Amino acid sequence: MCQLLGMNANVPTDICFSFKGFACRGGRTDHHSDGWGIAFFEDKGCRLFLDYLPSATSPVAELVQRYPIKSKNVISHIRKATQGIVNLANTHPFQREIWGQYWIFAHNGDLTALPMVTGDCYRPVGSTDSEQAFCLILTHLRQRFAQAPSLAELSAELADFIPTLAAHGVFNFMLSNGEWLFAHCSTKLHYIIRQAPFAVAHLVDEQVSIDFNEVTTPNDRVAVIATIPLTTNETWQAMNAGEMVYFSDGQVTKVL
Amino acid sequence: MCQLLGMNANVPTDICFSFKGFACRGGRTDHHSDGWGIAFFEDKGCRLFLDYLPSATSPVAELVQRYPIKSKNVISHIRKATQGIVNLANTHPFQREIWGQYWIFAHNGDLTALPMVTGDCYRPVGSTDSEQAFCLILTHLRQRFAQAPSLAELSAELADFIPTLAAHGVFNFMLSNGEWLFAHCSTKLHYIIRQAPFAVAHLVDEQVSIDFNEVTTPNDRVAVIATIPLTTNETWQAMNAGEMVYFSDGQVTKVL
Repeated sequence: MCQLLGMNANVPTDICFSFKGFACRGGRTDHHSDGWGIAFFEDKGCRLFLDYLPSATSPVAELVQRYPIKSKNVISHIRKATQGIVNLANTHPFQREIWGQYWIFAHNGDLTALPMVTGDCYRPVGSTDSEQAFCLILTHLRQRFAQAPSLAELSAELADFIPTLAAHGVFNFMLSNGEWLFAHCSTKLHYIIRQAPFAVAHLVDEQVSIDFNEVTTPNDRVAVIATIPLTTNETWQAMNAGEMVYFSDGQVTKVL
Repeated sequence: MCQLLGMNANVPTDICFSFKGFACRGGRTDHHSDGWGIAFFEDKGCRLFLDYLPSATSPVAELVQRYPIKSKNVISHIRKATQGIVNLANTHPFQREIWGQYWIFAHNGDLTALPMVTGDCYRPVGSTDSEQAFCLILTHLRQRFAQAPSLAELSAELADFIPTLAAHGVFNFMLSNGEWLFAHCSTKLHYIIRQAPFAVAHLVDEQVSIDFNEVTTPNDRVAVIATIPLTTNETWQAMNAGEMVYFSDGQVTKVL
């Protein structure tokens, strides 16, 4: 299994604090040491850092911790391989383009006996169930929508389709186009929405605290999503099995 | 205009030396300071580092210079914007998936009045002529080949199609799937093939030398492709206008 980290905010925000704790779980405070990745959307652009080294010791992870990239949507993943060998092609998150938008996907879980990907546009490069599921989602959406759908159309379609994939096993995932971030829980996923009045937060995985008052403005709203809560002194919302939500401008809306 | 750097080798090789000189041209020894990017293939996987900061001062470029990522195919680009604003979506190289393979593309030049991209699979995210040309190439290839073609089929098809795009302006580009690297010259592109007996090379842009004898084995063969030669004491091959070649295992073959 793996661990997921996501962020959706109403203003470009850096994820250095959360990632500092999360990265420890890739080989230091936990055993998810089969590679890691993080995608930052910046407007329509996206940059995706991948490494097959453990995040706790990767030079790229060290860069990401100290280089404050400001983004409204971030998805990160540390891998404990279940299907597919440890290499770059099997490292999450995965990226594809649909409707002239980059989409990013990362998965924690294990899916078996997925249908083959049909259609012309999206084929897995690596050998994970995760990338296959991503290609199935995109192929399905492409068949339904020739142009980019509205958020309402998209969430209705995903609410219809995702359970058919989730029936194949454990399917905790995050999916974003840089504007909206969808999160689906099969077994374990938590989120927290930070907004004024801001407080001090302490990481679980490192002896590090941050006073969000010092790094925010009163209108900021930041949702952080993680497999296991990242802080010791905040109340994280546990998602239920089969629940799907989307985040937009740091606000959460239930889909399933 | 922009500058291009590429590498194709028969063994995984790091590009730290060449990139050290090349990165200087993004804001220090030359004026290509509107962002930069570099893509490293590792087997079927690919990692793409992008930044809209000048490569001469980018923290990500600094990482790439000191973190020796070994790859058989690398494409890098430093941008001097002609079409499209300076942002991440317009930063080269661009990446898409076709036939279950990642493909990487970077362009130096300026194309006008390109046809619109038709077909379902590839649409530009940003606003550059370059990404539009890349989408046109992939759409054309997808229409011709439902499955990955052989190198002979692919190079014949590109030889037929690329001149129709090159007729729209200046089209120096590199294109790779991690196995083969195609290079097309409209105005300026050079390459060098390093193989035994290896010698010492001195960078143009920095007071740095390397003795390739110390970092190679006798069977290594490494082609380096660059807009303007990177070293002072080696003989680089200038490509002709309208010439296209591919590199495979560090060997060059003429296509056009």
